[in-house]
Amino acid sequence: MELVPGNSLITATPQEGRELAIAMARKTIGAIQPDADVRHLLRPGYAMSADSLTAAGHVVAVEFATIAAANNYWRDNA
Amino acid sequence: MELVPGNSLITATPQEGRELAIAMARKTIGAIQPDADVRHLLRPGYAMSADSLTAAGHVVAVEFATIAAANNYWRDNA
Amino acid sequence: MELVPGNSLITATPQEGRELAIAMARKTIGAIQPDADVRHLLRPGYAMSADSLTAAGHVVAVEFATIAAANNYWRDNA
Amino acid sequence: MELVPGNSLITATPQEGRELAIAMARKTIGAIQPDADVRHLLRPGYAMSADSLTAAGHVVAVEFATIAAANNYWRDNA
Amino acid sequence: MELVPGNSLITATPQEGRELAIAMARKTIGAIQPDADVRHLLRPGYAMSADSLTAAGHVVAVEFATIAAANNYWRDNA
Amino acid sequence: MELVPGNSLITATPQEGRELAIAMARKTIGAIQPDADVRHLLRPGYAMSADSLTAAGHVVAVEFATIAAANNYWRDNA
Repeated sequence: MELVPGNSLITATPQEGRELAIAMARKTIGAIQPDADVRHLLRPGYAMSADSLTAAGHVVAVEFATIAAANNYWRDNA
Repeated sequence: MELVPGNSLITATPQEGRELAIAMARKTIGAIQPDADVRHLLRPGYAMSADSLTAAGHVVAVEFATIAAANNYWRDNA
Repeated sequence: MELVPGNSLITATPQEGRELAIAMARKTIGAIQPDADVRHLLRPGYAMSADSLTAAGHVVAVEFATIAAANNYWRDNA
Repeated sequence: MELVPGNSLITATPQEGRELAIAMARKTIGAIQPDADVRHLLRPGYAMSADSLTAAGHVVAVEFATIAAANNYWRDNA
Repeated sequence: MELVPGNSLITATPQEGRELAIAMARKTIGAIQPDADVRHLLRPGYAMSADSLTAAGHVVAVEFATIAAANNYWRDNA
Repeated sequence: MELVPGNSLITATPQEGRELAIAMARKTIGAIQPDADVRHLLRPGYAMSADSLTAAGHVVAVEFATIAAANNYWRDNA
């Protein structure tokens, strides 16, 4: 199962880094719960709970911290 | 969908870095729950729960840690 | 709205860094819930819940980690 | 009990780093709850709760941050 | 109110760093809930909840990470 | 009370670093709840809750991040 799209943490821009963070967070869930039907069943309750959304946002922030460090914060783009 | 306003982590000041952290945290939620009507429905319950607010503040703190590192903590401003 | 008092992460001492961490954590909550009356309503329940206090302490610890790094851990003060 | 497969944080690729992060997270649980029957009993409830899955994903993100730093973010692979 | 005992993150040993981490975590709670009677009232329920203890341990771990970095991980002691 | 076994973060291998992380996490709990009888009473409920186990695993991951950095990620072992 692919866990890191492109098998690299290096991205061209912060925007792409953020998309990678979201994708990596999702792929972890897929690795733990490989049944796509279950994941789709869970989605409505989760996507309508503010606290669940905040918790998901927290995970994305942690993933992004790693990706941003990997890319030296895209400082050369600035 | 724009996930990082300005597509850069570099800001002029800590205040702008903090605003970016809040904006990035919000845009992640928008990416996970793209329906603005649902997000507005969730807001009152969330904004009146101390624990929900603390959890949101935690996410902002994590986002800000990344942005602060990207800006070398704005030490030259000091 | 002021999110970083003094618009700088640089402080003279760890004590001042800690005060800044607490202030930044509080100002984020103020940005998310700008209604001071609601914040005051929420305070008693929050301040009498051990778990809520621990969660708030967690956020302060995360903010302080950033501030401490910004100040090179005040090693020259030691 | 083996807690770090291969007894090294160094991996060839981000994908392998991610697999190591998941494995390390699981082995910690095994160290705290060594009874495999209990762990299997817990699994269905856990794997069908969105919030439990998000919490597990959070742990993987934290483990991965360490592994990614150990590997200098696999920048030479990029 | 004293938030960082000794107003320094520098300690002689990891043991002392850990004691500082616990003290700093406690002093934050004291800053948020300054009424010692309330804090004592909350203590029994909190100290008999495994999840509350784990959450408190999490905060200590985060505080300690900062203190350990400040002390260059006490590598010269090793 | 001993909070850091051996009073050092330096270990020979990642495996030993992981064992230290688990031991440090446990000793913090012992410092907050020094009554061993209470800790043993809490253990069954905690060790049979998937979410409690995940939370404990999270703390171990945070402790390990510090220990791994202290050991330069044991890169010379690789």
